[in-house]
Order: sequence, then C-alpha cells, then structure tokens
Amino acid sequence: MTAYDQFQLHIAELSDILNAISILKWDARTQMPPGGAQTRGYQLATLSRLAQVHFISDKTARLLDAVEAEIAGEDEDSYRVRAVRQTRQYYEIIRRIPLDLVSAKAELEPVSEGVWAEAKANNDFASFAPFLQQQLELAKRQAEAVGYTEHPFDALVFEYEPSMTAAKLNRLFEQLKAGLLPLLKRIVANDRPLERDLWAQEYPIDKQKAFALDIAQRFGYDLNRGRLDIAPHPFEISFTRQDVRITTRYNRNYLPMALFGTLHETGHALYEQGVDPALTRTALTIDFLGKYPVGGTSYGAHESQSRLWENQIGRSREFWNVHFGRLCDYFPEQLADADADLMYRAVNRVRPSLIRVEADEVTYNLHIMLRVEIEMGLLDGSLKVNDLPEIWNAKMQEYLGMTPPNDSKGVLQDVHWSGGGFGSFPGYTVGNVMSAQFLQAARRDVTGLDDALARGDYAPLLGWLTDNIYRHGRAYSASELLQRATGRDLEVGPYLHYLETKFTDLYRLGN
Amino acid sequence: MTAYDQFQLHIAELSDILNAISILKWDARTQMPPGGAQTRGYQLATLSRLAQVHFISDKTARLLDAVEAEIAGEDEDSYRVRAVRQTRQYYEIIRRIPLDLVSAKAELEPVSEGVWAEAKANNDFASFAPFLQQQLELAKRQAEAVGYTEHPFDALVFEYEPSMTAAKLNRLFEQLKAGLLPLLKRIVANDRPLERDLWAQEYPIDKQKAFALDIAQRFGYDLNRGRLDIAPHPFEISFTRQDVRITTRYNRNYLPMALFGTLHETGHALYEQGVDPALTRTALTIDFLGKYPVGGTSYGAHESQSRLWENQIGRSREFWNVHFGRLCDYFPEQLADADADLMYRAVNRVRPSLIRVEADEVTYNLHIMLRVEIEMGLLDGSLKVNDLPEIWNAKMQEYLGMTPPNDSKGVLQDVHWSGGGFGSFPGYTVGNVMSAQFLQAARRDVTGLDDALARGDYAPLLGWLTDNIYRHGRAYSASELLQRATGRDLEVGPYLHYLETKFTDLYRLGN
Repeated sequence: MTAYDQFQLHIAELSDILNAISILKWDARTQMPPGGAQTRGYQLATLSRLAQVHFISDKTARLLDAVEAEIAGEDEDSYRVRAVRQTRQYYEIIRRIPLDLVSAKAELEPVSEGVWAEAKANNDFASFAPFLQQQLELAKRQAEAVGYTEHPFDALVFEYEPSMTAAKLNRLFEQLKAGLLPLLKRIVANDRPLERDLWAQEYPIDKQKAFALDIAQRFGYDLNRGRLDIAPHPFEISFTRQDVRITTRYNRNYLPMALFGTLHETGHALYEQGVDPALTRTALTIDFLGKYPVGGTSYGAHESQSRLWENQIGRSREFWNVHFGRLCDYFPEQLADADADLMYRAVNRVRPSLIRVEADEVTYNLHIMLRVEIEMGLLDGSLKVNDLPEIWNAKMQEYLGMTPPNDSKGVLQDVHWSGGGFGSFPGYTVGNVMSAQFLQAARRDVTGLDDALARGDYAPLLGWLTDNIYRHGRAYSASELLQRATGRDLEVGPYLHYLETKFTDLYRLGN
Repeated sequence: MTAYDQFQLHIAELSDILNAISILKWDARTQMPPGGAQTRGYQLATLSRLAQVHFISDKTARLLDAVEAEIAGEDEDSYRVRAVRQTRQYYEIIRRIPLDLVSAKAELEPVSEGVWAEAKANNDFASFAPFLQQQLELAKRQAEAVGYTEHPFDALVFEYEPSMTAAKLNRLFEQLKAGLLPLLKRIVANDRPLERDLWAQEYPIDKQKAFALDIAQRFGYDLNRGRLDIAPHPFEISFTRQDVRITTRYNRNYLPMALFGTLHETGHALYEQGVDPALTRTALTIDFLGKYPVGGTSYGAHESQSRLWENQIGRSREFWNVHFGRLCDYFPEQLADADADLMYRAVNRVRPSLIRVEADEVTYNLHIMLRVEIEMGLLDGSLKVNDLPEIWNAKMQEYLGMTPPNDSKGVLQDVHWSGGGFGSFPGYTVGNVMSAQFLQAARRDVTGLDDALARGDYAPLLGWLTDNIYRHGRAYSASELLQRATGRDLEVGPYLHYLETKFTDLYRLGN
C-alpha cells in the first residue's frame, strides 16, 4: 500500500463517520419520533467526538508526513495534491483551536439557543443579551486561535467562505447598495396591485409535491440518488453524491413556498449529485470544519447554485412561458383565469419586509448586509451587544424604509447568533452575486443556451455547471472556480444588471 | 469519577455507535434511494469496525479490571454487577474469535448470499452447495473458537439463545412433535372450506394502516417513541427505548398480512419500549455479539413477545369479538356479510404448506425443527451438504405430508444459511413455547386478566409483561426470566395445551 492509499483510507473512514452524522441529522429532522430527541443527541455527540479523535490524531500527522513526501513534485493542480494540501491546511487550523474552547462552544450552544427561543417568543432582548455577549467572547477567542491579518471577522468568515474578508465584503456591499437602494425606491414608487390574487385558492399538497418534483427532475435531480421530504426548516443534505436528499414545506394556499423551496434545495442537490465520483470519500468532499454541506466548495458557491436554479431559472419569464401550461394540468380550476404573465408577476413581487427568509430578490441582500455589518462591528468592538436593537432598527429604516414593531420581528428573528454562527451570512449574498457571473459565463460558452432554456431543456446549462463547478467538489475555492469559469474575480456587475433588467421590465420602470 | 462511571461512559459510547449503525440500517431498508446502497455499505463497515475497535481494546480491559475491583462484594443480583459481569463474559468470548475468521465471514457473506439468490431463482442447489460448505467450515471454526462441551451447535445457538443447547432442543422437539403431529393430522382430516372468502375483496392500504396502528396503540405501542413504515421484509428495530420503529408490508386483498405483521412487530416493540430507562446506554441493553435487536434478552424471549401479541392475543376469539365492529368501521362494504366468528376462523386456517414464513400456528414449529435438526447434523458431521435436498424433502414428507416440487420451494427457500446464520432458527420455536408459559403465569398473577382482554383492555397484561420481562432488558437470561416469572424451566405443556384447546374448538375436533 502506498502512503497515498493509506492516507486516503484514513480520510475515507472520516468521511464515512461524517456522513453517518448527516444521516442521523436528516433522520432527526424528518423522521424521528419526538421521544428520540435526547438519545439522538447522545448518538450525535459520540459520533462527532469519534470524528474529531479520528482526524486530530497522531495517525493523521504521520500519514500526512508520509504522503507529502511521496507526492512531492507531482502536479500541484491535481486532485491528489490538492486533497493532501487541504487536509494539511485544515489539520493545522483545527489543531490551533484549544479543546476547552471547543467544549465551551458546544456547551453554550443549546443553552443559548434555548434562551434565544424564549426571548424571541417574549420579545425580550435583554434576557438574551448576556448569552449573545458570551457567544461573542467565544467567537473572538476562536478568531484569535484561527488567526487573521486584518479583521477578526476574517477568521470567522473563513469557515464558510474562505475567499472572503471583511475588507472585500465591505467593498462588495458598497457596490451592491449603490445599485440596489435606488432600484428598490423606483420599484416601490411604481408598485401596483396585481389584477388577481392567485394565492386565495387551495392547492392540494400532493399535487404541489408532484409538480415541484416534476420540475426538479427536469432540472436534472436524480431521484435514484435522492428524495424529497417535509421539514419545517427546509434543507438539502448529502451522504456522498449517491444519496442527496432535499426537503420543503407546504402552504395550502401559497404555492410559491413549496415550489421555490424545492427548486432552491434542488439547486444545492444538483451541485452535490454532480460531484466527480472519483472524489467520493476523499478530502475533496469533506468539510473539515463541519460548517456546510459536504461536496460543494463553500457556502457561497453552494448558495450560488440554489439561487441560480430557484431565481434566475425558476422565477424567469421563460420558465413560466414553458411550464405554466403544465402547472395548469395540476391545478386546472385554480388557474382557470390566469396566464403565464400573471404567474410570472405574482412570483416576483418586490416589497420591503421585516423578515429575511420571506424577502424577495431585490431586498434579500439588504437584510444580509445589515447583519454582516453588525457582526463586523461586534467583533472589532465598534458596536456593543446592548445597543443592537437600536442599531438594527436604524439600519432597517435606512435600507428598507421600515422599523420593526418589536425585537422579535427585528434583531431576534434569526437563530444564527444564538448558536455562535458569526460569519455565515455573507455566503447568501456572495452566492447571489456569483450566480449571475456563472450564468453570464454559461451564456458566453454554450451556444443556444437561452433557446434551450426557453424550451425547458436544462441539460446544456446543467452540463456547463457540472463541468465548471459541480464535478470539482471542494478541489477549487470559490474564487478559483470563478476565475477558471468566468475569467473574473467576484464582481457585482452581472448581478446588478440581471436585477435591473428583470425588474425594470417587470415594473415597467422605463429608464 | 468512579471506576464504574468511567466503565459506564465507555459502554455508553459503544451503545451510541451501535445505535447509529441501526439507524443507518433502518434508513437503508425503508428510506434510502437505491443509488445510495454502495456508499451506505462503506458507512456501515466503518462504523462496525469502530464499534469493534472500541470494545476489543486495552481500554475496555483496563476499565473492566478497575470496575471489577470496585464492585467486589456488591449484590450479585444488581443491575450494576450484572452489567459488569456480562461485559466481561462477552469480552472474553469475542477475544477468542480470531480476526482472520471474522474477516473470512464478512467477506464470504455477500458473495454467498448472491450465489444463493441466483441458485434459488434458478432452482440450482448444486451451484450453492460449495458456498454452503464454506459457511459450514467457518461455522465449525467459530464453534471451536467460542467453545462448547457437548455439541458444536451449542456454541452457535449461544449467540442467539444463550440458555439453549442441542440436547435441550432435541428433548423439546420430541415433546413438541408428540403433540403437534397428531393434532395436525386431526385438523387436516376435519378441514372444510369456509362459507365465504374474505380475501377476494380490496382493502385500501391507508385504512389497513390506520386499523393496524389503532390496535398497536391499544396494545400499548407509544407513537411518541415509535413509527410504522413499509419494508419488504418487515422488522422491528430500536435505537434505545425512546425510538423503537416497526415496519410491515401490505397486500390489497389479504388483510392479515399487514395486520398480523404489524401486531407481530408491535410485540417486539412493546418489549423494547418497556425497558427500564435506567438501562438506556448500559451493557444491559447491548447485544455485544450483534445478533439480535438490543434491549431484549434473547432471540427467543423477543420472539415470545411478538408471537404472544400477534397470535395469543391478536388471533384470539376474544380479540375479534371486541374489535370486529371496529374493523367494520374501516371496511363497511367489504365486511357487510361477515361476522366476528367468520373472521376468527379466517385468520386461523391451518394447512400444511411448503414455505415457513407463510405457515400457521400449528405447522410453523415443524418448519423450524426440520431446519434445526439439519443444522445439528451438518455441524456434527452426520449429514453432508450434498445430501441436503433429499434430507429436506424426506423430513417435509414426514412432518407435513408434502414434498416440495423443487429446491427453490424447499431447501433453498431461506436466506439464513447463505449468511452463515446457523443457530438462529431455534429462537422462533423457543419463543412460541415461552409465550404460552408467560401468558399462563400472567393469568395466574393478574386477577381478572381475561375479563380485561375480553374488553380490549390490554394495560393489565402489558403491566405484567413489563414488570416481569421488558423492564429488565438483558439483565436476566431467558431461562432466568422464565424461572423468576413462572417458577418453571422451559416446558412445552402450556403451549401444546393452548394449541390443542384453540384448534379443537376451531375445527370441532371433539375428543
């Protein structure tokens, strides 16, 4: 057995344990009877400890030393070399994180989440503030342990979006705001009620599911390696490319909830199902830091794919022109007096709102920027925990022209901070921006792409995305993928152009 | 931390890994998309190896030495002492099994099962014979490694039914045959067609499921800690008492398949859900040899509970007197001209048949005895693999008065031997025999038990079974449980009496 084979076997076992953990989590969120929660917690804790012991071991160090000697001089760009290099990189990072910090975070998380849930229910930020302060202190310790050159936020965002830093994000946000805020103003000024409310009717759930799965499969989702279940907080999860599951939730009236939820998770799933089989059970499909689904290379890269399929495809005029008739086959009575144009406008309504997860394409990123700016301020000390409600409300007024009536619908709305998840929000906006760059490059490379999309033929797009993104797993970082596929760094131009074009037309904004 | 606490923590982690394995198996059999099979195999293999490494370790030896010193002099009958003693017992046994034998068995199993499936499909015993021979050789090596005093079969049956030996089984079988064979003859001679075929109609599957779950819950199955799914080969599986799942399969016409399948697995599940919470994640709910569901003390003890609830309760006249009206609420048209007596007779038809899994209460044990007698003969060398088809057919003729038309419906029908599972069959018959002893003792101890059952009130029976059997987990062996609960060893009297009484009445056999 070569040193590489031994290294690979060790990593494959780690991959198996991590996938087992994911299976237990999927089961807990979709199938487990309520009584199983506590013992499931023990099972997850034990497997997580086993994974950690397996990776942070002298054996890993020995295997890394041996395999590094063996592959010296090989092509730096090969999957083999990248697998070893990334394993070394994360091994060194994780070893820098003190064990007592790991335990402190693990112990605080469930307590802090519980307090947050109570605080949200009772509109009582003050009771949550001390726990948020503790999470913040731990996050600062984490940042110091991992290390950074400019801003402590850089060390945290690294866990989700390795190509990003606070400085890069600030520039990105300024450019986005310069485009989004004026666009939003013009839309709000031109808003008119639709001639009919499509969501006053009932859409039976079994038919909603059948239509959503029909479209998911047209996009390319392979049900031989996947399935769709119900979850109150929908997600995609993968246990290797061979078993990639999605979830959604249903509203009997509001058709878009399950449909676009499914298409969103389908985008994530297409990424995971498209990973090169040769990368299965290797370091290039493992998230060593345990922060986001295995397979894809970063939170943002993953989100770029869910957003691309959900919004740029699923909410496009071309999509509804080709599929509206199909939807009518499922709901002939409910849609008797509607047409593709009305449906297109109904699923693309823009209106400032208080709640991030309900936001439309134009306002969504404003919700994200507000959160990331607050995280940065907390970490560099320019903002204080106790001032957050006031800061939140001021930013909401500035970006969206609304002030939350209470903290439950404001600063307390998201679970992320209660779990210490600082650094995860940028991925959503980075993903939106990247999605437009990728689609622009696909249009450049694939002759007749728009014709195919207009026919409902998604194979050419899926092929390009698989070739340029999906198959590489985590072999390339998000910025490397962007450079290789588009020849550019991250830039807001294509995304702003997409939004301006779409909503200028939709809201007849003129020029 | 005391030595006991350290020991318990180590065992709790083993329990967590084993439960995770069970969750992955349940998922594979009920939810997993087909494409996930191969990588699921890797995940299961890795977790199984981790469990083995965890248990067969110097750490286990050190912890055992320390805890044995600490508990010396404590009550020998306490759960604590029994937990340590059983861990030591299985630790020593498992260490006696050579690693190359473990690997050889693991490697042969999938190959051998594949060859068997082909052989069964093609009615080709000769192609399977060499693999059965290999399994037999490995089983003999296993028996020598584990050790025995009289018969190599004793070492194998120990893995499933620690209280049993070949000698005890032979005596049991002689007594059973002496009762069963004449009874069967009288039944066959008195067989008359029923006045109506209840299984010619269609019974919608959602209603079948609703009725079966209704009854399962009346028996005491707690859906807050359980759920019912579909599986082609139904089973019960538990991931601690807090999460105990059952499966069944449906036939649109043949109502008894799903109903009695569900009640059978419910019996297993009541056992698991009834284990004392204090035993969760301890040695007293772990099957160290990995042969049967955790929680219950032996294959036979477990089967005694599935059979008791399925047959002695579910197929009783009292059951149908109280529940037939309820079944009619679900299927008013299908059962318009039927009554409780007809249903009772329809679900209790006795007829010799070729296939074990389709056998009725009277003939079932004859199928088991035939198999166990063959296993014993193979292991002690008195029977040869190549002679099996002939021996099988001769015994079928002797016990059931039928000769299979081919080996697929004869010696090739069960998967067990292809996987090397020698020693597992006795549990079914031991379970049947024990079930009657337990129910007799419950009748002795619980005033008004039969009145309660006739009212459809199962709480008194469940209470007695929980007190005397379920709550103890694996703290007592099956023979200890029998002695404590009934004051007797295993004996066929109550079981034969139950069958004679029931079927003399059912078939009006007179005396």
